[in-house]
Amino acid sequence: ALPFTLIAGPCQIESESHAIEMASALHELCQDLGIGLIYKSSYDKANRTSVSAARGVGMDRGLTILAGIRERFGIPVLTDVHAPEQCRIAAQAVDVLQIPAFLCRQTDLLLAAGETGAAVNVKKGQFLAPWDMKNVAEKITSTGNKRVMLCERGTSFGYNTLVNDMRGLPIMASTGHPVVFDATHSVQQPGGLGGATGGQREFVPALARAALAIGIAALFVETHQDPDHAPSDGPTMLPLAQMRGLLSRLKPFDVLAKSAD
Amino acid sequence: ALPFTLIAGPCQIESESHAIEMASALHELCQDLGIGLIYKSSYDKANRTSVSAARGVGMDRGLTILAGIRERFGIPVLTDVHAPEQCRIAAQAVDVLQIPAFLCRQTDLLLAAGETGAAVNVKKGQFLAPWDMKNVAEKITSTGNKRVMLCERGTSFGYNTLVNDMRGLPIMASTGHPVVFDATHSVQQPGGLGGATGGQREFVPALARAALAIGIAALFVETHQDPDHAPSDGPTMLPLAQMRGLLSRLKPFDVLAKSAD
Amino acid sequence: ALPFTLIAGPCQIESESHAIEMASALHELCQDLGIGLIYKSSYDKANRTSVSAARGVGMDRGLTILAGIRERFGIPVLTDVHAPEQCRIAAQAVDVLQIPAFLCRQTDLLLAAGETGAAVNVKKGQFLAPWDMKNVAEKITSTGNKRVMLCERGTSFGYNTLVNDMRGLPIMASTGHPVVFDATHSVQQPGGLGGATGGQREFVPALARAALAIGIAALFVETHQDPDHAPSDGPTMLPLAQMRGLLSRLKPFDVLAKSAD
Amino acid sequence: ALPFTLIAGPCQIESESHAIEMASALHELCQDLGIGLIYKSSYDKANRTSVSAARGVGMDRGLTILAGIRERFGIPVLTDVHAPEQCRIAAQAVDVLQIPAFLCRQTDLLLAAGETGAAVNVKKGQFLAPWDMKNVAEKITSTGNKRVMLCERGTSFGYNTLVNDMRGLPIMASTGHPVVFDATHSVQQPGGLGGATGGQREFVPALARAALAIGIAALFVETHQDPDHAPSDGPTMLPLAQMRGLLSRLKPFDVLAKSAD
Repeated sequence: ALPFTLIAGPCQIESESHAIEMASALHELCQDLGIGLIYKSSYDKANRTSVSAARGVGMDRGLTILAGIRERFGIPVLTDVHAPEQCRIAAQAVDVLQIPAFLCRQTDLLLAAGETGAAVNVKKGQFLAPWDMKNVAEKITSTGNKRVMLCERGTSFGYNTLVNDMRGLPIMASTGHPVVFDATHSVQQPGGLGGATGGQREFVPALARAALAIGIAALFVETHQDPDHAPSDGPTMLPLAQMRGLLSRLKPFDVLAKSAD
Repeated sequence: ALPFTLIAGPCQIESESHAIEMASALHELCQDLGIGLIYKSSYDKANRTSVSAARGVGMDRGLTILAGIRERFGIPVLTDVHAPEQCRIAAQAVDVLQIPAFLCRQTDLLLAAGETGAAVNVKKGQFLAPWDMKNVAEKITSTGNKRVMLCERGTSFGYNTLVNDMRGLPIMASTGHPVVFDATHSVQQPGGLGGATGGQREFVPALARAALAIGIAALFVETHQDPDHAPSDGPTMLPLAQMRGLLSRLKPFDVLAKSAD
Repeated sequence: ALPFTLIAGPCQIESESHAIEMASALHELCQDLGIGLIYKSSYDKANRTSVSAARGVGMDRGLTILAGIRERFGIPVLTDVHAPEQCRIAAQAVDVLQIPAFLCRQTDLLLAAGETGAAVNVKKGQFLAPWDMKNVAEKITSTGNKRVMLCERGTSFGYNTLVNDMRGLPIMASTGHPVVFDATHSVQQPGGLGGATGGQREFVPALARAALAIGIAALFVETHQDPDHAPSDGPTMLPLAQMRGLLSRLKPFDVLAKSAD
Repeated sequence: ALPFTLIAGPCQIESESHAIEMASALHELCQDLGIGLIYKSSYDKANRTSVSAARGVGMDRGLTILAGIRERFGIPVLTDVHAPEQCRIAAQAVDVLQIPAFLCRQTDLLLAAGETGAAVNVKKGQFLAPWDMKNVAEKITSTGNKRVMLCERGTSFGYNTLVNDMRGLPIMASTGHPVVFDATHSVQQPGGLGGATGGQREFVPALARAALAIGIAALFVETHQDPDHAPSDGPTMLPLAQMRGLLSRLKPFDVLAKSAD
């Protein structure tokens, strides 16, 4: 199996300069460590806990920024889409379309994403068993587009809590599609702060190690230079300054897992 | 508190004649039993388990049929919407817009539904705690529209299984919004049939009794003259022929619950 | 079906005079309301969260007090047993042996309880599906003792939380054994106070209504004249002063449920 | 941190010759691979699903066999205890007393185990949060015995299913006690076969890798030369013939995890 790819970036696109700064740091880091990078950021946060939470820079501006990152650093970029009509437009600016977990059963969105021909990363719904992702993938591949990635990001476990069932990684891999482990959204505590979603950033390294030891195609980590002041997902994002240390310690687990098979 | 309203109908709009037949039977039944009726049916099943499952008659045709039912029988009608741009159009044909459970966090959809001024019935996401529905309701009421109903339809409980936490009924009622209990989707076994969702129709009467005894504003029940041959939700829908007996036995629990308060 | 029986009393036996006071009040109340009463209290709390929590008056003293209550008021009494060797001794003083939920799979304890010939009330383990109680009941009936009661008291739902799956009531009833609903332990928040178990007393009336509406043989409610100062289970026990009002409001749901069948 | 210890053996003691055969094979294997071994086997299966399931050779015979293994191979042995009075006796024959998960809140059993001075391995109850094991450990250490091990073996997740929350490993480790990962009971499907417990042996290697990558003190694996014909836990035990390959592939993850810290 190939070495893992890192999908990383700040949750939201905040500005062009911020995106360049983040992408530059991640790009340099990944080149130093020999890790493939897909830059991730969202132009719209369409399902926040509260109506008064920040939404993002909007689609036009966001896609322009992402296309700029792709050109400037020569790296693939990923963003999430929330409606069928966004897919074709987004696919002109980015390499990977991402389907949010809550929307992973919306047939029109999956078909529209598939029809672009772009790679599609589908987050497993918190309400879905890993074996049910086979049906989700088939909605996309029914368009003729086989470039589907399936992403674990936690399953509902009682109220305001997610759990990662690590058996889900081999179960989803048995579809033949590459499996992604989203280490930062997995530690969300949905609605756990009343009007916002909390998180347990401190468990990201342990969960990422576990997933890499089992064997994954990509690791998804949201990061920010100052998570506690970020417009969204602060409690789960990792400080950018910790990424080098984290990835250095994680990489040998990927190497070992893939040599062990 | 007022007597409960029944929200009932077949899962999908199958044809005009089928809709008239179903609405006619339910209307007569509810008049006999002195129960208020809102007729429910969907023009599109947008999130089915499998891509090859039947989707419905489409929006234009469906809304025309529903508007016809409303006029013919003089009863309010309800349908679900899946995208912001559908809300304004649907609100011209129906009295209540329904937000599907998977979509209950999609801010744009909630705002668009609210802005129509129509009543909005939001299903609680299977991934959401009942106290988190306060934030969902506030997205709608932020538009100035206070006509929000909150609907229990089961919470994720392990894989392929839902459970009703009956404490959720008083918790959601504490928002001041009317609470609906969806007795048929609560017995879904999501993805439980591999390529389709299963169900446990046999538990609908017990769960409906329990909810009415606690006290609810409306009971939601999908029904069909021949559920085992219906295009969707067959395993959970009740046979139309059982509705009279069921409602006759349920009504006294509502009367008692409301006299007891 | 017969009217429901009330199983009630304080969690722990605190003293002879306290037991007489509680039993006297409950006995009078149940006579007034025409409800059959089984007096419940424990001589030992064998599985408290913390090692420093109060354990109780001990077996000898406790059984003497319970036998006194039985004689004085002419009512059946119930207590829980925690080890096989306790069963024979306890069965001389009480009418119903209760198996705690954590111990519902301990074969030797179930067999020893069964062999006494006393009625046995088994709490469903928080870790068990309702259909698995069939195997538990069979351990007891294998002794020739058919007097088994199966009791719902909540199922693990994420961390520090229980949920009542109301479908469990008819599922357990399908074994042919009477089903009990424990309304106060169902609102426990196990370990929820760090060094102790919390509770949500406010949901007891709603859950009891729901269970009675579905149809149960007995309702189990722990009560105390001053729960907030009781040695155990304070957060879940109901104030004795509220019992008359609660039972008056609950009884019609039982009458209705049983007339509806 | 020290290299992981392997706790392994067949679920039940079947006979002296079987125990010697199993211990011999595991001892040789662990010496070859440089892994410390604690031999595990049970003299009584006290909480099987069905009353007709095999219970074991009994305490006297079982402890004699285990003491023989200890002497013959010079390795520590572990067995589980189910009642306070068993602890003192078992502690004369074995090095580690194990508390079954269902019994992890039984205060008298924990105190009796602690008072022997033997090491005590407590399985986390399927109904318990990992942070609640702090209270469990304190029951044992209140006796002055600090030799406590805390063992993850799965948490209730809906019906007939367990899930490992890998965050539980560092949470339990924060007590300062060594943490054990039980890879075979974690894949149980409790009651999943109707009258018996099922299992998913195929996920043991992935879960063990994940736990070792996070970092644990000991790995617990039940094994048998012919699991499908074993008297208990067949669906979860690993074939003895696979143990060498499994441990060879697992050991580097432990080495890496401990060098990475």
